[in-house]
Amino acid sequence: MSVTDECLVSNEAYAASFAGPHALPPARRLAVVACMDARLNIFAMLGLKEGDAHVIRNAGGVVTQDTIRSVVISQRLLGTRKIMLIHHTDCGMLTFTDDQFKREIEKEEGIRPHWAPEAFRDLEDDVRQSIRRIEVDPFVPYTEAIRGFVFNVKTGLLKEVK
Amino acid sequence: MSVTDECLVSNEAYAASFAGPHALPPARRLAVVACMDARLNIFAMLGLKEGDAHVIRNAGGVVTQDTIRSVVISQRLLGTRKIMLIHHTDCGMLTFTDDQFKREIEKEEGIRPHWAPEAFRDLEDDVRQSIRRIEVDPFVPYTEAIRGFVFNVKTGLLKEVK
Repeated sequence: MSVTDECLVSNEAYAASFAGPHALPPARRLAVVACMDARLNIFAMLGLKEGDAHVIRNAGGVVTQDTIRSVVISQRLLGTRKIMLIHHTDCGMLTFTDDQFKREIEKEEGIRPHWAPEAFRDLEDDVRQSIRRIEVDPFVPYTEAIRGFVFNVKTGLLKEVK
Repeated sequence: MSVTDECLVSNEAYAASFAGPHALPPARRLAVVACMDARLNIFAMLGLKEGDAHVIRNAGGVVTQDTIRSVVISQRLLGTRKIMLIHHTDCGMLTFTDDQFKREIEKEEGIRPHWAPEAFRDLEDDVRQSIRRIEVDPFVPYTEAIRGFVFNVKTGLLKEVK
């Protein structure tokens, strides 16, 4: 059985005890922006339940134009007011540079990505960079309640970045 | 206590029974692309455990340039080979149009977003559109095992889009 089919079997068990539907707007008015990393179980690590918070995730948990798009929709149309940004230790984005990654792809495919891979060298610096990108964006209405964290993949604990 | 502080209290409980660390590459070689909607608990709905799969999420679960960036990093650097795309019933992206959303922002802020909000009119059509965007992208190496689904927020069940 393929992984996807295994997931569909699990989904039937999930649906059997599913207590929905919940309302569309997030009950706790929170948007989480986090890395896509497989070790980050956002609902469990934050004690969230279905219906509580928007969860936006990409490679690195960096703030890109698409993150801004999602946050703007989250705040303007669905009423969220707080943002938690979550990076994590042992992140894959610490293991390469943008130039190197683009060069490798160009060598193999004959074309170079026109987008930035968004690798970074320091976790806390990049959390601050991500906060700043939201703060200066002209389309995000609510930027007063943004807090940034690093998740420790060894301990399961979040540490706030000041 | 703020919502974010409540989440930090929950995080301490999570860490107390945390069984890490897990390896960096996703154990089940799966990447999930899903909507940020608060009712989608991806780990629970698919029976995933910490370390199993990358989870990429944005407004709509649409495939944007940032989704491509994340999928390329997921496949090239971290070995995933399968993709599950998940949209859902009662999605906020069905409730507006791009033109209307951009016009409202322009009216309030004096500037119009230079990016597409990516609203859509039909869930299944947009799942197919998202699959197609990955298939035609020149930077995504593995496009044979992509499957698309709509999550029903009333029942908790996934339905495959053909």
